[in-house]
Amino acid sequence: MLSKSKISLLQSLQHKKFRREHGAFLVEGYKSVSEFINSAYIIEAVYHTSAVAPKLLNLSHKINFEEISINNIEKISALTTPPDVIALVKIPQWPTIKYSILQKKFSLVLDGIQDPGNMGTIIRTADWFGIEHIICSEDCVDVYNPKVVQATMGSLARVNIHYTDIAKVINDVKLPVFGALLDGENIYSTNFGTEGLIVMGNEGNWLRPNIIKLVNKAVTIPRVGKAESLNVAIATAIFCSEINRNILK
Amino acid sequence: MLSKSKISLLQSLQHKKFRREHGAFLVEGYKSVSEFINSAYIIEAVYHTSAVAPKLLNLSHKINFEEISINNIEKISALTTPPDVIALVKIPQWPTIKYSILQKKFSLVLDGIQDPGNMGTIIRTADWFGIEHIICSEDCVDVYNPKVVQATMGSLARVNIHYTDIAKVINDVKLPVFGALLDGENIYSTNFGTEGLIVMGNEGNWLRPNIIKLVNKAVTIPRVGKAESLNVAIATAIFCSEINRNILK
Repeated sequence: MLSKSKISLLQSLQHKKFRREHGAFLVEGYKSVSEFINSAYIIEAVYHTSAVAPKLLNLSHKINFEEISINNIEKISALTTPPDVIALVKIPQWPTIKYSILQKKFSLVLDGIQDPGNMGTIIRTADWFGIEHIICSEDCVDVYNPKVVQATMGSLARVNIHYTDIAKVINDVKLPVFGALLDGENIYSTNFGTEGLIVMGNEGNWLRPNIIKLVNKAVTIPRVGKAESLNVAIATAIFCSEINRNILK
Repeated sequence: MLSKSKISLLQSLQHKKFRREHGAFLVEGYKSVSEFINSAYIIEAVYHTSAVAPKLLNLSHKINFEEISINNIEKISALTTPPDVIALVKIPQWPTIKYSILQKKFSLVLDGIQDPGNMGTIIRTADWFGIEHIICSEDCVDVYNPKVVQATMGSLARVNIHYTDIAKVINDVKLPVFGALLDGENIYSTNFGTEGLIVMGNEGNWLRPNIIKLVNKAVTIPRVGKAESLNVAIATAIFCSEINRNILK
């Protein structure tokens, strides 16, 4: 049984301000909740309907499970179709990024990505291709936004997200910097080598000038047809796929 | 000045039933509207605010332009942020697909794609990679749905969409049929040749059994990380990119 004030608190987590204030966010649906339970994230509570109880018991004995009414699930859910189970998860205090963890691998750097669906899809795609770190400019959409969490389909539990001054990271890390830009080298003949940062820009404006200056190699996905641009999550996926094709062939 | 009944009619076009009944759909925003004006689609009217009038004059003299109030634009728009201009566009009567137009090129076949954002992104991506035809199962989301139109960013004006019995097309067309499936051949070593159908399945359920039976070659995007699946628009883009890489290198 949830108190009115608890319901208000959980509802407030749909807004970034209150997520920051309470240091927590919600994860919805059985699959995503189970991925978070099996991750390094700290689960404060799992709210579920009676329908889902038997399944949940297999997950973990250490979790604070709380059976609530369908009506209360509907109240706290941000989804159009409320799920059977919602977890209250602690927002981690990400340590300052150590540049050594970025060596000998590829990481994504996101410059001002605003759309929650794109951000979520990028995280899910990164997880598919084994990318461990995504470095976001401070003005990227919050990854604990319910729409982002939903679009990651549980992958948010595994990919490390860092919000920071991306210009400083790019400048200091001493790795090859590949930027997705128009009029760059053809991606299909680009030698990506074995490590680097892949820098992707905002949906409308591409990379900002101060970031473009830091790019070692501008790379372009060649166009055959007439679309003016590609969706940023699509472009990111094509970069991830190209980087991996030599490993995976 | 729009009559109340005209406003009701335009609002009703957010629903498939009324789009079918009136044989028309709405296109919102200057960029998309101008792409449709420069396409083979028939524009029944263009509604715009006074702010956008001078720009519109450059587009075409044959169009029925109608200046309306911001208030009325807001009433007929399906977007959270209403645009300055909305076009009323006729739904074309697509002729029965001739198999000869599918020869010597690649086309997409979509089996039960439900999500409007994914459908729109697939159309935009197809347009980028020069794919001219998308063949949809009858139960795919309607491409004249406002969310699909929005996500195509104008590309819907250029890509030909066919709703039909996809099993019949695949069966009759006598082209190589590549299906996106788990446990298929590695996409990075697949020889796609110079023509064929790329068959992509529903977000949750992949391809249906009767469609799987028609696939000549099952193809898989190998996974390095731990995500359970890729978003269908992302997977489609990686297929399009792989098919084009030999041409574009």
